[in-house]
Amino acid sequence: MESHAVVPGHITGLFTVERRSDPIKTGSTGAGITIDPGVSVTARTADTTNVIINGEPATIEPVTRVLEDLGVTATIDIETKLPIGAGFGVSGAATLGAALTATAVADGTKTEQELIERAHVAEVTAGTGLGDVVAQARGGIPIRIEPGSDGRLDGIPATGRIEAISLGTLSTPAVLDERPEQITEAGELTLATLLEDPTIEQLFACSQEFAQATGLLAPEVSEVIDAVETAGGTAMMSMLGKTVVALGTGLSDAGYDPIVGQIDHAGARLTQDPNNF
Amino acid sequence: MESHAVVPGHITGLFTVERRSDPIKTGSTGAGITIDPGVSVTARTADTTNVIINGEPATIEPVTRVLEDLGVTATIDIETKLPIGAGFGVSGAATLGAALTATAVADGTKTEQELIERAHVAEVTAGTGLGDVVAQARGGIPIRIEPGSDGRLDGIPATGRIEAISLGTLSTPAVLDERPEQITEAGELTLATLLEDPTIEQLFACSQEFAQATGLLAPEVSEVIDAVETAGGTAMMSMLGKTVVALGTGLSDAGYDPIVGQIDHAGARLTQDPNNF
Repeated sequence: MESHAVVPGHITGLFTVERRSDPIKTGSTGAGITIDPGVSVTARTADTTNVIINGEPATIEPVTRVLEDLGVTATIDIETKLPIGAGFGVSGAATLGAALTATAVADGTKTEQELIERAHVAEVTAGTGLGDVVAQARGGIPIRIEPGSDGRLDGIPATGRIEAISLGTLSTPAVLDERPEQITEAGELTLATLLEDPTIEQLFACSQEFAQATGLLAPEVSEVIDAVETAGGTAMMSMLGKTVVALGTGLSDAGYDPIVGQIDHAGARLTQDPNNF
Repeated sequence: MESHAVVPGHITGLFTVERRSDPIKTGSTGAGITIDPGVSVTARTADTTNVIINGEPATIEPVTRVLEDLGVTATIDIETKLPIGAGFGVSGAATLGAALTATAVADGTKTEQELIERAHVAEVTAGTGLGDVVAQARGGIPIRIEPGSDGRLDGIPATGRIEAISLGTLSTPAVLDERPEQITEAGELTLATLLEDPTIEQLFACSQEFAQATGLLAPEVSEVIDAVETAGGTAMMSMLGKTVVALGTGLSDAGYDPIVGQIDHAGARLTQDPNNF
């Protein structure tokens, strides 16, 4: 038996770090953009759990954790065109997709919110993410008003084409441990500014402000953003990766060869056919 | 200037009636299915508000109300293949689509949750619906755990084809006023049963139980449901309309010529092009 899911990528623009004793309540507030293409996940019934990414055996700690927590075993086959560790939330997408599909091939008796909670806890416990899972479950342009898997969400009403280019990886745990207070302070300030004018243009402006205020803006990322702006476009850095994201044709117009996607309004969902991806 | 949105139809399986002094908190708990095709809405800048449905001038009280509440005027052009007043939540979809698109052509400075709240209040105040707007905003197979526009939601993880056939209309306000306590009692019981086993098959079973317990099951609807079941399928009545909804090819297999749709995972969203519909 097999089951398929698609989960969007998530580009984080700005965020806070909110650690609590309860992993359900641990997470982050902030805002980002979910994109299609994201991650496609297929689960197949198996006696032991095996994880495959783009055809190669792999280990993704939160994926293993969430299956253990759910008490199911399965072969989890993950396909994605997005770079891993580059600020697209691939680990969160793989974890949520694994929870959805592995449960579907096992007993199928969990609600979406129960599966989101399990995937969120697995990500937080593995230290691979704080806010991707809840954003990817929702889709659109999610605003995380409260942290944790049961925190209040909102969104910016917008649609359109998104371009992205990755210049390399950043280690999520290292950056989060280094300066959580500075990140949280900048995240709270820029989120408040965004909520005064909840548009996609303002999200890009606030995200740029956040990247500068936290010192997270990498020089090579800054250079590409400048090139997009010189060509008349709007761009920002994705947290946490050396990744530049632009509205519309911003990166193409500046002469780059980007990943092209769309805002994903659906969020994580089971699909009937893996070729829906 | 113009702006486009798509909002799914919503087939209510079971529900409660929850009236509060605050229209934001007024609504219903329950469960249903959102479907694509739904309703396509285009707003165009105009000095006075005009509403058009499928090419003809029309009056939809909650649409007028939500534009007044938002302080905007626009021509609202609504297209749908779904029958009106037949339990597909067309008024809720039109209202939420009008709020999204009219705001986009005006100033665009509201979050999705703010627009959902305005559309929900307009529906509740007009008496045309209690739970459609929040379900249609979410998409998928929404479970309304708490009533109102800020109530907690969950969902059943499933996907697939849905068929529907409408045998006529039922007046929403009349039915709700007639026996709210009986409806709420049956809604609470069947929702609790659904949450014990949150699958789409169980949603159909609980919805059938609800239709029988409330006495809302129309004889002509019951006849079609029986025909689907005889042909090996699964069907239920949509609340509130003389409408039969079946999983997969249930109605086709029984010899009917149904509306064919899919579960809509995206929920209400702005679109770039009305032909996305």
